[in-house]
Amino acid sequence: MMKTLSLTQIENILENLDPIPAIEQGFVEYSKGKCNIPPIGELLMDKGDVHIKYGCITGEDYYVIKIASGFYDNNKIGLPNSNGLMLLFSQNTGELICTLHDQCLLTDIRTAIAGAITAKYMAPKNISAIGIVGTGVQARMQAEYLKSVTPCRDIVVWGRDPEKLVNYRNDMRQSGFKVTATMDMDELCASANLIVTTTPAEQPLIKADQIRPGTHITAMGSDTPNKKELDVNILALADVVACDSKEQCYIRGEICHAIKAGVIDMANTLELGNIIDGQKGRINDQQITVADLTGVAVQDIKIAEAVYLASLG
Amino acid sequence: MMKTLSLTQIENILENLDPIPAIEQGFVEYSKGKCNIPPIGELLMDKGDVHIKYGCITGEDYYVIKIASGFYDNNKIGLPNSNGLMLLFSQNTGELICTLHDQCLLTDIRTAIAGAITAKYMAPKNISAIGIVGTGVQARMQAEYLKSVTPCRDIVVWGRDPEKLVNYRNDMRQSGFKVTATMDMDELCASANLIVTTTPAEQPLIKADQIRPGTHITAMGSDTPNKKELDVNILALADVVACDSKEQCYIRGEICHAIKAGVIDMANTLELGNIIDGQKGRINDQQITVADLTGVAVQDIKIAEAVYLASLG
Repeated sequence: MMKTLSLTQIENILENLDPIPAIEQGFVEYSKGKCNIPPIGELLMDKGDVHIKYGCITGEDYYVIKIASGFYDNNKIGLPNSNGLMLLFSQNTGELICTLHDQCLLTDIRTAIAGAITAKYMAPKNISAIGIVGTGVQARMQAEYLKSVTPCRDIVVWGRDPEKLVNYRNDMRQSGFKVTATMDMDELCASANLIVTTTPAEQPLIKADQIRPGTHITAMGSDTPNKKELDVNILALADVVACDSKEQCYIRGEICHAIKAGVIDMANTLELGNIIDGQKGRINDQQITVADLTGVAVQDIKIAEAVYLASLG
Repeated sequence: MMKTLSLTQIENILENLDPIPAIEQGFVEYSKGKCNIPPIGELLMDKGDVHIKYGCITGEDYYVIKIASGFYDNNKIGLPNSNGLMLLFSQNTGELICTLHDQCLLTDIRTAIAGAITAKYMAPKNISAIGIVGTGVQARMQAEYLKSVTPCRDIVVWGRDPEKLVNYRNDMRQSGFKVTATMDMDELCASANLIVTTTPAEQPLIKADQIRPGTHITAMGSDTPNKKELDVNILALADVVACDSKEQCYIRGEICHAIKAGVIDMANTLELGNIIDGQKGRINDQQITVADLTGVAVQDIKIAEAVYLASLG
């Protein structure tokens, strides 16, 4: 009855699985208020911390508990800093159905998929170039998952560290992209009309006057009350401001800073699930749109379920 | 590296393992303020609920996450109502070290062991008879684990349902006890001087005038704000009132009702860990003592760790 999936097994399953439709569906159900997602559990220890995210979609088959840890000296001893697993249980009997030892891979993927879904529903029709801000794991994965929603294979990547920029360029070229690396944000904003910010910055990296009409920005790096990647005035001038979860964005991400600065009102924002479900987001290719992604547990629920169901063959 | 223990493997390990010393140690560390135990996570669903208890002893090797569910129609389809597992992680690297698929067995055992430890430190020297209030799982397990702390093998069991009383008597006779079953609490209180209450009662089952001098009562059935098994006047007249966790007993168990009624003061209670660590509890065999056990996560931490370490051989 109970199944265990190793990281390798999960990687193999993902080769023939597109979790985007399931996660889109999850965002819709989330925005309809069908999700039961308690506050995140947190255990802070001397050498690291662990977060427990859990919940379910009311009346569906499964509930999911995700355990994710960060131990920031692990790299020094050859271990990954981030670690984690997901547990899928029956919502009918409470039985453990599947343990997914994904070591955070599914979190990385569901995060990248949220970016792809956002671009699918909010980006302008023709993407001139994809602007990637940052050079880390999500800077790579966001671009990978955008492949399924745009034919554009031109990346302008911005970073502060030339070595990391070179590594990024080399990696993404191998993955089929044409990559321009820059340390000048003006250059990125001038050529990209789909920008994805993926950094843990605590001071804005992009200014309002750098943004051209017809640009969409997905800000996914900021997920705490302190982080922010965008000048609040970008949100003020945007025609559409969306987010994954209004409830979360009151206290973390980009939107909370803009609300605190008094330049936008939560009542004028949309949830991604609303837009997927048919509410109007972008209405022409001259509008500026912004999406603030902080990550919601329904993404974990949906990707764990999709991988488990695919494992049944 | 990562280990998985099935229920059968855990049962085998327990045959040669006495977890009492580890759990005693845990209570001492808890009362010294060395434990890091966040609030319990809770997910309430249509057909059941799940509770996530987690924490660690600061600076030790492991942290533990326990997932325990109750799905109250499971029995109708031949499944246990209660289910659960424990996950043991490294406090140094965050790595999952061991998954214990104990299906709640370890919770039942650590609960029974807390009763045994309480009796060891608080009961009078000579036990005339063990009074067991209730006929369920803990009514059996509490008696089993008392074997290691008293030579007394006489049980007086009280219950409301004659059939359950007969089943209890038969089971415990097989386990080496002499059992008297009664539906009259006076009879139990007249012969037993070590009483363990194990019911989910919400109205007191024992009155103050039924308690003889020299009696110790361990009340372990009440673990929510609504449940109570003892007349608050029993706590008022007791010479010693102890509990596993003052923090918890402010809001659940027997002590909170007695404080609300204004008949005792938390300042005059002791924690079990204080008594194990040398603070004076009972000082003679004429005193009346009461212990209120609501269950603390340090018991889960210690029993999971003990079983894992024993599995290494």
